[in-house]
Amino acid sequence: MITRNLAHTDIFSEQAADMIHNTAMEVLEKNGIQILSKDARDVFAKNGAKVEGEQVYLSEELVMEQVKKAPDSFDIYARNPENNVTVGGNKAVLASGYGSPFVLDYEKNERRKSTYEDYVKFTKLIGYFDNMDVVGGVTVEPSDIEENYRHVKMMEAAIKYTDRCLMGSALGTKKAKESIELAAIAMGGMDFVKEHPVMITLINTNSPLKIDDRMSDALLVHAEYGQPMVIASLSMTGTTAPTTIAGALAQQNAEILAGITLAQLVNPGTPVVYGCASSVVDLKTGDLAIGSSKTANMFNGTAQMGRYYNLPSRGGGALTDALVPDAQSGYQSMMNFMNAVRSGFNFILHSAGLLENYMTMSFEKYIIDEEICSMVKNYFEGLEVNEEQLAKDVILDVGSGGNYIAEEHTYNHMRDLKEPIVSSREGYRSDKEQPDTATRANEMYKQILEEYEAPELDDKIVAEMEKYIDDIES
Amino acid sequence: MITRNLAHTDIFSEQAADMIHNTAMEVLEKNGIQILSKDARDVFAKNGAKVEGEQVYLSEELVMEQVKKAPDSFDIYARNPENNVTVGGNKAVLASGYGSPFVLDYEKNERRKSTYEDYVKFTKLIGYFDNMDVVGGVTVEPSDIEENYRHVKMMEAAIKYTDRCLMGSALGTKKAKESIELAAIAMGGMDFVKEHPVMITLINTNSPLKIDDRMSDALLVHAEYGQPMVIASLSMTGTTAPTTIAGALAQQNAEILAGITLAQLVNPGTPVVYGCASSVVDLKTGDLAIGSSKTANMFNGTAQMGRYYNLPSRGGGALTDALVPDAQSGYQSMMNFMNAVRSGFNFILHSAGLLENYMTMSFEKYIIDEEICSMVKNYFEGLEVNEEQLAKDVILDVGSGGNYIAEEHTYNHMRDLKEPIVSSREGYRSDKEQPDTATRANEMYKQILEEYEAPELDDKIVAEMEKYIDDIES
Repeated sequence: MITRNLAHTDIFSEQAADMIHNTAMEVLEKNGIQILSKDARDVFAKNGAKVEGEQVYLSEELVMEQVKKAPDSFDIYARNPENNVTVGGNKAVLASGYGSPFVLDYEKNERRKSTYEDYVKFTKLIGYFDNMDVVGGVTVEPSDIEENYRHVKMMEAAIKYTDRCLMGSALGTKKAKESIELAAIAMGGMDFVKEHPVMITLINTNSPLKIDDRMSDALLVHAEYGQPMVIASLSMTGTTAPTTIAGALAQQNAEILAGITLAQLVNPGTPVVYGCASSVVDLKTGDLAIGSSKTANMFNGTAQMGRYYNLPSRGGGALTDALVPDAQSGYQSMMNFMNAVRSGFNFILHSAGLLENYMTMSFEKYIIDEEICSMVKNYFEGLEVNEEQLAKDVILDVGSGGNYIAEEHTYNHMRDLKEPIVSSREGYRSDKEQPDTATRANEMYKQILEEYEAPELDDKIVAEMEKYIDDIES
Repeated sequence: MITRNLAHTDIFSEQAADMIHNTAMEVLEKNGIQILSKDARDVFAKNGAKVEGEQVYLSEELVMEQVKKAPDSFDIYARNPENNVTVGGNKAVLASGYGSPFVLDYEKNERRKSTYEDYVKFTKLIGYFDNMDVVGGVTVEPSDIEENYRHVKMMEAAIKYTDRCLMGSALGTKKAKESIELAAIAMGGMDFVKEHPVMITLINTNSPLKIDDRMSDALLVHAEYGQPMVIASLSMTGTTAPTTIAGALAQQNAEILAGITLAQLVNPGTPVVYGCASSVVDLKTGDLAIGSSKTANMFNGTAQMGRYYNLPSRGGGALTDALVPDAQSGYQSMMNFMNAVRSGFNFILHSAGLLENYMTMSFEKYIIDEEICSMVKNYFEGLEVNEEQLAKDVILDVGSGGNYIAEEHTYNHMRDLKEPIVSSREGYRSDKEQPDTATRANEMYKQILEEYEAPELDDKIVAEMEKYIDDIES
């Protein structure tokens, strides 16, 4: 969890935020939103929304009344209480890359389909470092596991190899329920889960202005159980959203608020996060431009709109268009991650490991991004200014032309500087081969996997989870 | 020049800034500052400062009276008026890496001493792109040119291969004057130069609390001619400054304000920039930690102290500890450069090309940093929110489940997205070798050097400069 001691920054005026709000309200009223789940449409209809076929028309009054019911901050509980987190305020909760179908084989310089083994490895890396607060989503797609129990196998691995907060399934009613039931085994039973958020789930819209049935059905389940959700628009400029960022923000706003309205209608006070999973597209080539500064600006605008509604927000991550953990991957990921924290996001998915926009996870990039997260965390701690830090007497003592190296004050504070993870400060040496960052990261992740020890977990929980999954599998 | 349309951010409270100010004032009064130049000491003495040996003691009253005389913003004039720049307000003027004794031979993966040929190559690269506003300092040290005329050879190259603003010499009285006289040849004569800033010069203190004679003598010359100077502290935490950042900022503040006081005493209203060239040191190894987040925080604090005195400020750059243009070089340079602009610096030296803190320039890193500068520039342009950008009618027209690709609005705006310089957005291809960023940069810089055409320059100016330099050389 990052605590942001420096101010967030806005990207546009309050008046511009009003314009985005008003555009979204007019869109929800005149075009409405297409809701593929009948159950979800029934919830809207029961609460007075006009429903015609799959189209649900929402008034500003209905939407704003519901949005006001969502909390501005909430906690998620982990099986180790030391790992509980707060989503809101000046906190940023981190989760690793999510959803990649591929893994980079750095040594062969090629990508391959990701597997369950990769999933476990990434889970262990997450557990080794302190930065990721939430684990257990689709860190990578385990393509070698059947879809009907993939979601619970992933959560089981998250519980076995870490003791952090979890992510739930967004794939329809049944899987959403199963993810909650499996978590309940590890969290001391369903009674606890009904009273405490123990996971967070990603509900994405299907832009433009549509929510598919899997997502809206899962939303109904998680809302019923009071489990937090990130309601995010997943649009692409120029294809599924306007190519102008302000337009994309307005359409996204309509979609997110429709989803949040649904969650609040089901269960008032359900914790939700105002989210953006949208991408800027380079229409000249059709490629995503995740690493472009306009993507960063779109995230700025999303965080600001979240604040506009007093809601926690999600966006950003260590995002890049680069194919390998090279310079581009470094500068784009740092821009996007630093911007995410500075914008004021409270939940930052994709904080570590991704390459090639969202397509590929890389073990090397994972290590590098842990460094980026640590640097940004350290940066936002800010600076202490007090007598001890100002060291006036030491300055007067050392005087003009003196040296601080032998001062007690220097000795007392020389360890204040954070140790890097994979960065090197070593100078050039003509007599020694000095590996680059990706090579160092490659060596480091293998070493960590060899050494990693998972936190303790009761054998009874392990057995109960296994049985639960066996029942689904068979 | 970057125009920052988004707000700057502060790192500490106004009260903390007061504490740094008060500490510096007490240090200047009790310890004073050691000034090695007799001429400079005489200026202080003549204006009522207590001088004992080389030590000059300054009262808060004297310092603040002088600091108030410095302008909060000023212009620098280039031989092409389109390249004039403003230093102050929400503008950030950029200059490339500065002072490196080495150049990276990327293909051989080794560093070597930099030469005049390297200097000319970097100058041409600066001229090719639009980001660097100021040129002609020690982009790299041309080790193959005698020191007595190295400064004018560098400026001559800057004038011949670009038409941007210049940097002057800080190496004592004679060289400072020569840099002004050479610039006068290109800028239409000394009368123009006396009335207009045509260059900016880096005056660094010799921490702790000392200014050497070369620097203070050069300061006297540039102040006399009304030429702008960056007065910067060049300290290292734990050796030539306290190891705590707040202490380093307090000591640096004393040094910078002493230099600014001297400049204003010589010529009230001399344009000065409040500068930081200081480094955080990792005392556990003795290595500089330029790429650490605490270096970035030190720059935040410097920019804030500049604002405290209503002065333009300098700091940051695309700084890294990495030895090669790898991932680390990317994430550290982006952090430092983005932070420099966000902090509100008005002059950002080291904006392109550096590796291994300040030791090595790299052609590949230069290209990569031009990309970083362009991205950050584009980022700080911010977002337009207006009816055209909001595209409400387009959103309503496309509707739920539609596609924007064939819309006229999409066509009209698809070129709004900035083209990358060296970043790639291309997806993975199993049938094609895809070079990494450093390899692409290596190819690109060679191509640019082959194609580069310098802006026009009158033959008479060329001949006059040659004659001027011949006279110094012989």
